[in-house]
Amino acid sequence: MQNPTLHIRRVGIDTWRENVAYLHRDCPVVRAEGFQALSKVTVHANGQAIAAVLNVVDDERIVPPCDLGLSKEAFARLQVEEGHAARIEHAEPPPSIAALHRKIAGERLGRADLFAVMADIAAARYSKIELAAFVVATNQFELDRDEVLHLTEAMIAAGQRIDWRQDIGLGPVVDKHCIGGIPGNRTSMLVVPIVTAHGMWCPKTSSRAITSPAGTADTMEVLAEVELPMERLQKIVRSTRGCLAWGGTADLSPADDILISVERPLAIDSPGQMVASILSKKIAAGSTHLVLDIPVGPSAKVRSMPEANRLKRLFEYVAGRLGLQLEVMVSDGRQPIGRGVGPVLEARDVMQVLQNDPEAPQDLRQKALWLAGRMIEFDPDVRGGEGWRIARDILESGRALAQMQALIDAQGRRGAPSPTAALLHEVRAPRSGVVVAADNHRLARIARLSGAPQVPEAGIDLRVRLGDTVQEGQLLYRIHARFDADLQFARELAETDSGWRIGSSTELPRDFVASE
Amino acid sequence: MQNPTLHIRRVGIDTWRENVAYLHRDCPVVRAEGFQALSKVTVHANGQAIAAVLNVVDDERIVPPCDLGLSKEAFARLQVEEGHAARIEHAEPPPSIAALHRKIAGERLGRADLFAVMADIAAARYSKIELAAFVVATNQFELDRDEVLHLTEAMIAAGQRIDWRQDIGLGPVVDKHCIGGIPGNRTSMLVVPIVTAHGMWCPKTSSRAITSPAGTADTMEVLAEVELPMERLQKIVRSTRGCLAWGGTADLSPADDILISVERPLAIDSPGQMVASILSKKIAAGSTHLVLDIPVGPSAKVRSMPEANRLKRLFEYVAGRLGLQLEVMVSDGRQPIGRGVGPVLEARDVMQVLQNDPEAPQDLRQKALWLAGRMIEFDPDVRGGEGWRIARDILESGRALAQMQALIDAQGRRGAPSPTAALLHEVRAPRSGVVVAADNHRLARIARLSGAPQVPEAGIDLRVRLGDTVQEGQLLYRIHARFDADLQFARELAETDSGWRIGSSTELPRDFVASE
Repeated sequence: MQNPTLHIRRVGIDTWRENVAYLHRDCPVVRAEGFQALSKVTVHANGQAIAAVLNVVDDERIVPPCDLGLSKEAFARLQVEEGHAARIEHAEPPPSIAALHRKIAGERLGRADLFAVMADIAAARYSKIELAAFVVATNQFELDRDEVLHLTEAMIAAGQRIDWRQDIGLGPVVDKHCIGGIPGNRTSMLVVPIVTAHGMWCPKTSSRAITSPAGTADTMEVLAEVELPMERLQKIVRSTRGCLAWGGTADLSPADDILISVERPLAIDSPGQMVASILSKKIAAGSTHLVLDIPVGPSAKVRSMPEANRLKRLFEYVAGRLGLQLEVMVSDGRQPIGRGVGPVLEARDVMQVLQNDPEAPQDLRQKALWLAGRMIEFDPDVRGGEGWRIARDILESGRALAQMQALIDAQGRRGAPSPTAALLHEVRAPRSGVVVAADNHRLARIARLSGAPQVPEAGIDLRVRLGDTVQEGQLLYRIHARFDADLQFARELAETDSGWRIGSSTELPRDFVASE
Repeated sequence: MQNPTLHIRRVGIDTWRENVAYLHRDCPVVRAEGFQALSKVTVHANGQAIAAVLNVVDDERIVPPCDLGLSKEAFARLQVEEGHAARIEHAEPPPSIAALHRKIAGERLGRADLFAVMADIAAARYSKIELAAFVVATNQFELDRDEVLHLTEAMIAAGQRIDWRQDIGLGPVVDKHCIGGIPGNRTSMLVVPIVTAHGMWCPKTSSRAITSPAGTADTMEVLAEVELPMERLQKIVRSTRGCLAWGGTADLSPADDILISVERPLAIDSPGQMVASILSKKIAAGSTHLVLDIPVGPSAKVRSMPEANRLKRLFEYVAGRLGLQLEVMVSDGRQPIGRGVGPVLEARDVMQVLQNDPEAPQDLRQKALWLAGRMIEFDPDVRGGEGWRIARDILESGRALAQMQALIDAQGRRGAPSPTAALLHEVRAPRSGVVVAADNHRLARIARLSGAPQVPEAGIDLRVRLGDTVQEGQLLYRIHARFDADLQFARELAETDSGWRIGSSTELPRDFVASE
C-alpha cells in the first residue's frame, strides 16, 4: 500500500492559520486511502511533516491529479519548492487529543496535558473544531488556578522567548498592560516615554484593534512605523531602552494567537484564558516587572469590585509562581479616557499631554502618571511613594516629549501630517441635565462605524465627562469620518442612543474608589 | 459605497458542508470592504442569499479579480449559472448568536432560542467554530430535559418531515433503533422482515458506518441497493410496507447532520445530544412507535445500569412530550452480537438466521426476536406477551425470509455473489481458561483495520463467546482481508491484545439481567 509520490504545487489561497492540502478527486491516492473532504492528513516532504485539512478538488486548473496542492500557509511551513516530491497519509490524531476529550468531559488537566495541548496548537495540529472545543471547555470557571498557571507556562514554552539579560543583567524590564474595553485610554504612549526617560527598560509591544476603534499599535502608527522585524526592534530598544511596536511579528505566544482567533468570534474572554494570554506574552517578551490595569465599570470588561478582586488574585497567583513582579491597579472604567476615540484623535490627545498643552485631557494625563509612577517604583533606587512625583517631573520638564520624539525617530517617523477628517457630525444633548452614565460599548461601536481604525482620522471626539451639567442642544461629541456612508451609519446609531445618559444629579454614581 | 457587481464562477473544490467564497486579492471589493481571509460574508444572487466563509486568492486560474468563486456546495445552494451577477457583503452575525453566547456562558436556553439556533445551523449560517462551541456548551450535563425536548423539536422543524398518514391513517408506523457501539448486532435486517411480514409498516432508514466496521446500510448493500431517492423509497414502502435503506438522502434532520460532523471528530456523544438526534430523525421519518435498544456493558456506550436508566428516562420524557410511543429495552452489551463483524460476514449471519440454518448465531436470533416481539405488540390487535411467539412463528415459517427477498427485489438485488476474502489470519487463545471479557472497541478496531467497511468482505469472524472454556491455541476468530497491508495492520493489533480476555471462571461476571 505504498502510495505514489506526488509533486507539490502552491495553491494561491490564503486560508489564514489553517493548513489546507488540495488533491484532485481522480488522484489514485484519494481512492487508495479513502480520503474525503475535510480528512485530516499529514504531508511529508523534505524530511518535514505538517498537518493539514484535505480539500478534494475536481478542477485540474487548481491541482492536476498527480500534484499535491498546498495553501499558502501550508506551503510556507513546509519550506520546499514547487515540484518537490511529497507523500500524504491519514493524520494520526494530535498527541494531546485524549487530554482535550478529558477536558470536554469536565476533568482537570495536569501540567503535562496542557504542555501537550499548547504544543499541538502551536504546531497547527488542531482543527478549528478542536480549537473551539478547547476554548469552550476551558471557559468560565472551568480552569482552576493551577491549570491557569500550567496553561501560561505551556503557552510560553510553545513560542519564542526574548532575553534582555545580556543587555541589562538583572535590572528590571518593565511593562504595563490594560485588560482593555475602555475607549481612548491610550496610556502606553505616555507611560513608555516617561519610564524610559527615567532610565528604565520598557520594550512595549502592543496589538492592533480587533473589535475596538483603535489599538495602541494603530495609534502609534499615526506617528511612526510599528511593524518592525525582531532584529530591528531589539536594536531600537538597545538604543532608546524602549519601543512602541506592533507585537504581531514576534511569535511570542503562537498558541495564544491561534486560540484568540477562535475566542474572538465566540466573544469569549474568560478569566483563566485572559490571565494565561496576557502573562504568557509578557514573560515571553522578557518582562520582569508588570503593572496591570483592570478598569471597572458597568460597561467595562469587569463590572464589579468583587469580580476585579477575583481576577487580581488569579493574576497575582500565576505571576508570583512564574517570578514576574506584578502590581495590579484597579481603575475607573465608567467612561472613556481622554477625548479622542480613533487613531488620529487619540494620537492628538497623547501629544497634547506630552507637550503640557493646557488643553490636554487631564484624565488621560493623571492616569498615565499614576501608572508610570508605579512602574518607576520598580526601580530599586526609588523610594515607595516617590514614583508619581518623578513621573510628573519627567512629563512637565519636557523630557518625556523628547524621549517620545527619539522613539518615533528610532522606529521611523511617518512623513505625511495626519489628515483631517473630511466629514463631521455633531451629536448634541437631547435635554438638559447631568451626564450620569456612559456606555463604553456604544461609544466604541459608533467610533468604529465612523471608520476607525481602518480610516485613521475617523472616530469620535468627546466633549463631556460624567458629572458635567449640560443644556439641551449642547455638544456631546463630534463624529469624524472620511466617507459619507460611514458617517451615515455612525450618525444613525448615535441618534438612537448617543452613549451618554443625561439624568439628574441624584442618579450620579458615587465617585469611583480605586484600589490604591 | 455600493460595490461593483461580480460574476459567479464555480470553483471545483469540495469543502463539504461549508460554503466558501473565493475572491482575488486584487478585487476592488476586497479592499473596499476590508475583507480578510475567513471573513464571514453574505452572497446575494438571483434574489437568494447564502452565508459563506471568504478565502482570499492570489491565483487568477482559481478566480480572476472580477469574479466571485464559490465552492461546489455554495454554488449548488445558490442555484444560479456561472457568470450570473452577484453581490457580496460582510455577514450579519447569525440571528441566534446571542443565544449561543448565553449557552457558552452557562445559561439555560428557551424553546425560541433553540429553534433559532437549529434554523441557523440548518441554513449553514454557523461556522465550524460556532458549531463546535454549541456542541461543547451543550455537552455533558449542560442541557436540562426541557432543553433536550426543545432541541428535538427544533431539529425536526429545521428539516423535511415524512407523513405516512395518507397511506395508513392512524395505524402505527414502527421503527427500532440501537444507540450503537456493539459490533455485529445487525438486528434491523431481521426485525424489519419480521414485523413487515406481520403486516406492520416499518420504513427503516439506517446510517453507514462512521467509526464502526459496518452500519446497517453497509451490510444491506451487500444484498441490495440502499441509496434510494425519496420518491422511489416511498414507492417501495407502499408496496412492501418496509425498507432497509440508507437515510442520507432524506434531509430529515439537517441541523443534526451538521452537528454530527462536529461531534464525531470531538468524540462527543452526550445524552442530550443523543436523545435529540435520534428522536428528531425518527419523528421526522414519520415513525409513531419506536423500540429503542440500549446495550450496557464495560466497553459499550453505556457502562452501568444507573446510567442506562438515566438515559432511558430522558428518552421517555422527550418521546412522551412529542407523542412518540417508545419502548426502551436495555440489552446485554458485554460482547459483540452474532459472529461476523464486517458487511459480508454480518450479511451471512442475517441470512443464516432467516434461513433457520442450525449454524445461525443464536444470540443474534434471540435478540432480533425479542426486539421484533416488542414491536409487534404495538399492534393493537396483539395481546401483551404474545409478540415474541408471533415473531418466532414468522421467522420459523420462512415468511420472514420471503419478506426479506421481497424487500431485496424491491430495492434492487445486487447481482454479483459476495466475494470471499482472499486473505485470512487466525487469532488463537494464548492460554487455556475461560473467556471472561470482550473489548468491543478493540474488536471493532481490528475489523476496521482489516478493511471493513470499505472492503465489504473484510472483517472478523468470531468463534468464541463469554463463558466459553478454551484451550491454549484454540481459534478465537479469523481476520478476513483483501489486501496484505490491511491484514498486517489488523494482525499486529490483534497480537498485542486479541480483544478477548481469557481468565478463570471466578472472574466471569454474573449473567446480565435485561430490563424486561
